Parts: sequence; C-alpha cells; structure tokens
Amino acid sequence: MEWSLFAKAEKESMLENEKLKQDIIQKFGTPCAVIDLDIVDRNIAHLQALCDNAKLANRPHIKTHKSPLLALRQMEAGATGITCQKLGEAEVMVRAGIKDILIATNIIGAAKSGKLAALLRDVSLKVCADNPTSLNVYAEAGRAAGRPVTVVIECDTGQKRAGVATPNEAVALAKIVQHDPWLEFGGLMFYPPLDGWLATQEFFDTTQAGLSSLSLVPKIISTGGTPNLKNLGLLDGATEHRSGTSIFNDRMMMAAGVANIEDCALTVYTSVVSRAEDTRGILDAGSKTFTPDTGGLDGFGLVLEHPKARIYKMAEEHGFIDISNCESRPSIGDILRVVPNHVCVVVNMFDQLVAVRGNHIVDVIPVDARGRLV
Amino acid sequence: MEWSLFAKAEKESMLENEKLKQDIIQKFGTPCAVIDLDIVDRNIAHLQALCDNAKLANRPHIKTHKSPLLALRQMEAGATGITCQKLGEAEVMVRAGIKDILIATNIIGAAKSGKLAALLRDVSLKVCADNPTSLNVYAEAGRAAGRPVTVVIECDTGQKRAGVATPNEAVALAKIVQHDPWLEFGGLMFYPPLDGWLATQEFFDTTQAGLSSLSLVPKIISTGGTPNLKNLGLLDGATEHRSGTSIFNDRMMMAAGVANIEDCALTVYTSVVSRAEDTRGILDAGSKTFTPDTGGLDGFGLVLEHPKARIYKMAEEHGFIDISNCESRPSIGDILRVVPNHVCVVVNMFDQLVAVRGNHIVDVIPVDARGRLV
Repeated sequence: MEWSLFAKAEKESMLENEKLKQDIIQKFGTPCAVIDLDIVDRNIAHLQALCDNAKLANRPHIKTHKSPLLALRQMEAGATGITCQKLGEAEVMVRAGIKDILIATNIIGAAKSGKLAALLRDVSLKVCADNPTSLNVYAEAGRAAGRPVTVVIECDTGQKRAGVATPNEAVALAKIVQHDPWLEFGGLMFYPPLDGWLATQEFFDTTQAGLSSLSLVPKIISTGGTPNLKNLGLLDGATEHRSGTSIFNDRMMMAAGVANIEDCALTVYTSVVSRAEDTRGILDAGSKTFTPDTGGLDGFGLVLEHPKARIYKMAEEHGFIDISNCESRPSIGDILRVVPNHVCVVVNMFDQLVAVRGNHIVDVIPVDARGRLV
Repeated sequence: MEWSLFAKAEKESMLENEKLKQDIIQKFGTPCAVIDLDIVDRNIAHLQALCDNAKLANRPHIKTHKSPLLALRQMEAGATGITCQKLGEAEVMVRAGIKDILIATNIIGAAKSGKLAALLRDVSLKVCADNPTSLNVYAEAGRAAGRPVTVVIECDTGQKRAGVATPNEAVALAKIVQHDPWLEFGGLMFYPPLDGWLATQEFFDTTQAGLSSLSLVPKIISTGGTPNLKNLGLLDGATEHRSGTSIFNDRMMMAAGVANIEDCALTVYTSVVSRAEDTRGILDAGSKTFTPDTGGLDGFGLVLEHPKARIYKMAEEHGFIDISNCESRPSIGDILRVVPNHVCVVVNMFDQLVAVRGNHIVDVIPVDARGRLV
C-alpha cells in the first residue's frame, strides 16, 4: 500500500474506533468491559487446534468468562466438556444444556451435597477430590440422587495448593472410590507448575502402577493452565487439558509468552475523570473494577492509547495513572482502553460484557455465573 | 460468676455458635458473608453519637454495604443523608426513597449525564467536581432535567487522588458554578490524610476567603474517612462527615485504632476443603471472595477460631492457610469465620449478606448496589 493510502486507512480506523468509544459511552457509560468477538473466536479456535494437535480433549475452564453463551461457543468449536470451579457455576452451565462438566475443587458441606444431588439428577458429573471427607459428601449426594458421582483425584505436583501430595494417597483414595457404590473412579487431575511436568510424569506413572494393581483404569488424565499450553503434550498418558484464560488473554498471558497484544480480547473502557496534577490522571475504574490483583506485574493494566502510562495505584473507584512519560497526555473525558493484568478476576466484577466485532457493538453477554460463590 | 458456671456458659455459647454454623452451611453453604445486626446497630449508633458530639451532620458512605435497607437504618438513626461513589449506586438509593445524596466522584460522559438528568427529575442531587469538564456534564444534566445540580468542589489536601490542588482552583470552579443557571454552589469536600488536618484547615480558610469575595457561602463542608473519626471536629468550619467502613469495621480499622474485634460486624464463613499438607489448609474462599486487597496488613484476614492461623495466599477460589502455629489444627469440613482486612471490597463480591442476631439467622440482605460500576 502506498504511504498516503496507508495513512488514510489508519486515520479511518482511528475515527471508527473513536465512534465505537462514543457508542459505548452513550449506551453503557464507563467503566465497561468490552470483548472483541473476532478475537474471541480466534482464541477459541486456537485453543481447540492446540489440543487437537496434541491429541488431547479440550475442556476449557469457564472461570474466565462465566458465560453459558461463551461456553456453548467453545463446545461448538470442539470442546468435549467444560471445567467449573464452583458448584454454583456448574448449575448455571447445566441450565444452558452443557452435560460434560468437571468441577475442579473439593466440595464440602451440607448445602453443597444437596445441590450436588439436585444437579446429579439432571447430568452425570465429574468432581475432584483430595480427601476422604469430600468423597463422603459425593457418595451422600450420589445416594440421594440415585446416580454415582464420577470422582477425579486431584494430585499436587508442586503448586502446593490442593491435591494429594503422593501417589500412595492418590491410590488410597481411588480404592475408597472403588468400594463405594455411589462413587465411580474417573481418573486423575493435575495442575502442573510450568517447570513441574517431569515431576508430574513421575507422579502419574507411579500412581498408574498402583491403580493397575487395583484393576482401575483412569478415563481422564487432566492437565490444566493457560501458561501450560506451551507444555501441552509433555505428559505421556494425558487425555485432556483445562485452559481458562486463553479465551480472552491478558497482560499476564503476554508476560507468560502464550499471547500477544492482538490476542487480548477484553479491554476495560474507562474515562479520565480528573487531571488534578499535570502528571496524574484519575480513571473511573479502581479496585472494584480491576481488583488489586497485579499478577506480579508492574502496574494494573496496559493502556492501549498511552502505552507509556502507568496505572500505579487503586482506590475502590479511582485508578491512579502516571502520565508523565506519555507522548501526549490524556484529557478529562478521554476514554482509554485498558488490557487488564488478570482478566479472570476483572470479568468477575461485571454483570455483563459488551461484545463488539471490529468497531461495532453486536451483543451484550451476561456474566451469568458471576457471584456463584458456593 | 463461679468458674464452673463460667465454663458452662462458655461451653453453651460455643455450642450455640456451632449450631449457627450448621444453619449457615445448611441454608447457604460457604463462602457466606454474615453480618451481626446487633453489632451493626451499635456501630450505626456509635457513628451517629460521634457526629452528634462533634456537632457535625452524619452522611455515611454506602460504598461499604451497598444496601438500601442498611442506608435506611442509618437515616433512621439520625444521618442527614448518604454518600455514594457511583451514579448507579445513587439510582438504587433514590429508588429506596433516600433524597439527600452526595455523589463523591467526578461524573463524566454521555450515558452518565443522561442518567444524572433522569435522577435529577426525582431528587435534588449534590455531586462533586474538581474540573470544568465535569461542571459541563452537570450543567447539561441540570438543563435537561430542569433542575440545577448542587456542586460540591472536591479539594485535595494530601491524598493525591482527585480534587483541586489549590484554593485558587477551588474558587475558580466555584465562580463557574455561580455563573451557570443549571449549577448551584453547594460547598467543599475534603478527604484529609490522617495527618493532614492542619493543611486542610489552611486550604479551607484560604478558599473560604476567596468564596466570600464572590459572596458565596458554602452550605456543606464535608470531611471523610473512618480512620479520620479520631480527628472528627478538628476542622473548624466543617458541617458534616462521611464514614463508610464504620458500619461493619474490619482488620484495617482495628489496625487504624478506630475499632476492636467486637466491633467487627461482618465475618466470612468459609470451609476448610483440603488439608493436603500437615501445616497447610485450603479454604473455599479465595481472591474472588476476599479480593487480593490486604490493606497493607499481613495475611488476608483474621480467623476467629484460630487467631494464630495465617491466610498467606489466594488463588481465585482457594485461600491458602498456614496452620503451623495453631493450638489445634482445623480439619476438613471445619467452618471458619474470617474477619476480612478490607470489608468494603469483600461485600462487593457478594450478592447478599446473611444477617444474624447472636446465633440466630434473622434476615438475608441483598447487596443491591453491587455491580453498579457506572
């Protein structure tokens, strides 16, 4: 393209973008969480292709978007099922017609076993466990529903979060499962640290031997994590992968080397509402929009219009932005698009996502599973 | 009381508390945000008494509870009005019948000026400003509604957040307000740093002189902040105070010396769901319940049952708890009550608060203004 044509195209694209900003502020106001569906589609397809290439089933984690609509898009693209972190999230997804669900946390307590039983009457569920108390809860729910719960044993290979610490414990839990008529052994779940795949292989192989001696065959060997997409296929024996963040991506995924800026589907539109000092701006989005989760990065997001700006501090409804290094400094009323550090926790602050394609608003997507804490 | 009687009473109280925990988990599950209305009532009365003693109007900030029901309780106890941070919060409060509202942030943008005009048709509103662009938005809304907006000039005396930095700017804005038929000058708003009350006095006195020369008399001189309750009355000329957190209190307010543990009305009930390691427990409440906001304190909350436990890390739905120093170590299935570091951001994660008196559930209070980000 000739330079003059290129400049014209760029100017038109900027004008188009300015028009979208005005549409957003007219219809929704700021702060507003906006997702670009073209990028979302691409990200969904990309994850599916990565899993296909590694011959793994794709079980995306819905914690990132909490939207049945987007979960269904992932299923249509080839996902075999989804992952939920909370029972309440699973309830929302079942209502949307999704039937293959893994709940990736221990579920404890009376209200939960009742809810679990209610869900089990509609669908077969896979639930993870790392202890016998959870197994009791699941067996109780299975008995109440008249349908066994499929149990996936959570194994810790270095995250030091939940998960049994040794293959022996994994096998011991599998044995309890084997002997309970209301439980069915489903397999093993791992969330390997980035550099912990060798250790995961060892853990798996040892556990596998123990399971064989019980004549148990795991159907599911699940790995997880979006940064771990670069390790996909490293665990010999894995059957599926759980990735959440890859549907939207964020600054953390860029830092982890699994996404580029053009893969970031969600931006928060925020207005500059104060310029009390020459080098300081105040945004109308603070910790009740972005949360204080920096994900270990400097600042609270990347400002697309002013990449040299630094969001350095958050009050509940104020974002503090240092604009001293900006080529041109934003004015009061300017709308800035911010790529968040950690998109999962940001989506969780919104009741809806505004969906665009290019520079046109095409939909409003409710975050239906937000607030389903139980 | 004799020791044996005392021991009996204590045992009964523990059993009662155990019964409440079982009620909570049966009816709601964990994590669950529970407020003790006896403490809430006491905190509301205490704030009112502090303001009365200092001869200041009490304008509590609803950002902490986001509940019209609780705002109405504060009004009944003597508050003259309320403070909101967002226009959307004000909409919820107006719907509940509250008429005296100060919005304590700059409001910018088309959607907002339309919403502001719509609200103005129902009630007279006080809105703060630190710049002429905001004033334009307010005047436009006033014109559209046919009723002027009362403007309170936000002044910065050391927080380095929003607010004009000098008395001259404050007076210049007041002058713009004076000459716009759709704006009415209301007064000045301060959020003094704990050690910035002398500077605030100087700022106020100088501004006051400037306002006098314009024949402007501020009706409202507003100070804010719960830690600032210990400075109440230090600003000669102040007419009102805005305190949010004092209705519930939290670990930050304890650290600030304005609350004791028995003044903390809100606890998060959370279950121990994993004990994968001897010294590590995992709670079913992580950063999507507590947020990563530590408020500068160590750990993410105070565990009432195990004061020596330390919540040292958060994943989205996992709270990591170090129990190595506990006298007795919690088991899987134990319900723990956690006083959060920063209660305002925690309430904001819940759709409802379960209200108890002593050990009985008496109500479920919706957090109606949650998610009103615009």
